[in-house]
Amino acid sequence: MDTSDKTVRISRNEMKSEFLRILLSHGMEHDRAERCSEIFTVNSLEGVYSHGVNRFPRFVKYIVDGYVKTDAVPSLIHKSGSVEQWEGNLGPGPLNASFATDRAMELANENGIGMVSLAHTNHWMRGGTYGWQAARKGYVFIGWSNTCANMPTWGGKDPRLGNNPFVIAVPFEPEAVVLDFAMTQFSYGKMEAFRAEKKNLPYHGGFDKNGDLTDDPVEILDTMRPVPIGYWKGAGLSILLDILAAILSGGLSTHEIGSCDKETCVSQVFIAINSRSLGNFPSIHNSIKAIIDDIRKTEPVGDGTKVRYPGENVVEIRNQNLKTGIPVDKDLWEKILSL
Amino acid sequence: MDTSDKTVRISRNEMKSEFLRILLSHGMEHDRAERCSEIFTVNSLEGVYSHGVNRFPRFVKYIVDGYVKTDAVPSLIHKSGSVEQWEGNLGPGPLNASFATDRAMELANENGIGMVSLAHTNHWMRGGTYGWQAARKGYVFIGWSNTCANMPTWGGKDPRLGNNPFVIAVPFEPEAVVLDFAMTQFSYGKMEAFRAEKKNLPYHGGFDKNGDLTDDPVEILDTMRPVPIGYWKGAGLSILLDILAAILSGGLSTHEIGSCDKETCVSQVFIAINSRSLGNFPSIHNSIKAIIDDIRKTEPVGDGTKVRYPGENVVEIRNQNLKTGIPVDKDLWEKILSL
Repeated sequence: MDTSDKTVRISRNEMKSEFLRILLSHGMEHDRAERCSEIFTVNSLEGVYSHGVNRFPRFVKYIVDGYVKTDAVPSLIHKSGSVEQWEGNLGPGPLNASFATDRAMELANENGIGMVSLAHTNHWMRGGTYGWQAARKGYVFIGWSNTCANMPTWGGKDPRLGNNPFVIAVPFEPEAVVLDFAMTQFSYGKMEAFRAEKKNLPYHGGFDKNGDLTDDPVEILDTMRPVPIGYWKGAGLSILLDILAAILSGGLSTHEIGSCDKETCVSQVFIAINSRSLGNFPSIHNSIKAIIDDIRKTEPVGDGTKVRYPGENVVEIRNQNLKTGIPVDKDLWEKILSL
Repeated sequence: MDTSDKTVRISRNEMKSEFLRILLSHGMEHDRAERCSEIFTVNSLEGVYSHGVNRFPRFVKYIVDGYVKTDAVPSLIHKSGSVEQWEGNLGPGPLNASFATDRAMELANENGIGMVSLAHTNHWMRGGTYGWQAARKGYVFIGWSNTCANMPTWGGKDPRLGNNPFVIAVPFEPEAVVLDFAMTQFSYGKMEAFRAEKKNLPYHGGFDKNGDLTDDPVEILDTMRPVPIGYWKGAGLSILLDILAAILSGGLSTHEIGSCDKETCVSQVFIAINSRSLGNFPSIHNSIKAIIDDIRKTEPVGDGTKVRYPGENVVEIRNQNLKTGIPVDKDLWEKILSL
């Protein structure tokens, strides 16, 4: 994000206290508002502005419009050993997802692995949040959410698939390795940012009106045909993640969720594996370190692309934003102050 | 595969009995040779020639060279509830993987979900095999293998990552929905086939010697720089699948596996969820059918690309090959007959 005069820098504490004030004034119970504010603030602090501060007004609007029920908590529908299916009751997505992650970890304490599904929940904002949550406490995490239809299937023109974010995280001292990616090559937010700067995307990001691949964000935002990662492969992964989210939770699938400007009632899956329950093998930390060290030995392509492991840049951005404040669009921040 | 005079058509029974004869003559016990031949034959019958008949001579060479131990069976190293870690003892990859899949299903019978990892095993051939195996019996399946280093990391030139095939399968009457994909956009086998036909790939498949994306298979096979699906996203997924395979099994990671012409000692993960243990929600079959029906309603792009669900074409190819015989390169089949 640039630091032009359209951007203000907000401290972590100031951001969180504004979020807290707004959620309290919209009727959320204090402890829940506190936790929800923390998630939105940390998402912003760690550079995922699109699912932090930038999305906060929409989250509040969804509370006002009744899509997000501030008081609602998940209720257990069915349990079978280490598998639990919970009804999300349209509670706040981040609180529901954080709860489900904790519950999957508790199940993993009992039997090594646990799975929790959530039906009828709301957008979890940044999927990586729950990967960090589990991995920092020593759990392997695999989780995903379905979404509204925002991507065409392979061979089709109109949006029928979700970009269904998928998260894998592992403990790695002092924190974690966390992969958090959606099925579209570029998010809509990213394409809008490139359009605003009148720049082309660095790679093909979708199809133009002739059905040809293009790196022009204007064309893609016009056709609404972003390309799935790996073409047919990402489309296939989107389909399977949606099927699993729906059948494991008993909730809705992408085609039932409805339009993306009122995205609610999504389905999610949370799998945790307790790394402390594994056999006495070589240290997990050392194994991961050796993998990362090997990757770093690669001959660089020489265009300045930094070789990283997933999640590495999160720590850098967090440290930067702790020092300088979190960059926020000035108009957006004024809007938030007025909420 | 074309049906020119360089291709012969081999019936399923003939292929299996040749494979069986060869494995018996290489010292494999009868029941195991029977099951192993069946897997190689079905992979071929269902169109995955690269990990069926085309790979069979290499599998036999690996037995001769001692990389694959015909008698070796997995041994349990550690158990913690629904998580079991098995030592693969360098047994035949398909038999080890099939065993691990069955074991994960047994664990899922006890607690809803089960996970089995395999250290020091061999190439499982077609990952989808184990997805079909589990899904046909009513289990959701998630599994993956690491591989030798055959793909660059993002920002690097030389191969440091594996193409780590990833499989997700769900029961769907009368069979299954099965996604089985590797992290490179095109397999080496596919790129070699395009090169042989002097054709370009349908999409960018890797980098040329200037570091630019290209659809020319000659260039990519020369640089050995296939592109990961979704660029940095597929590279990240490859890293996480390798980390998980290594730490969950206690086995080797990609950088320890060694060169791809002697690929052995890989690590694998098998997760099964018992769909019959789920709550009494709407029928899984009907949920999946509604998802597939919706996808099929898409406006087609009009270039002849058929809109399919993952695994759909397997049934078509199987039926075709059952009728006409399995297409095999004539020289290859003669070589197999001489083994």
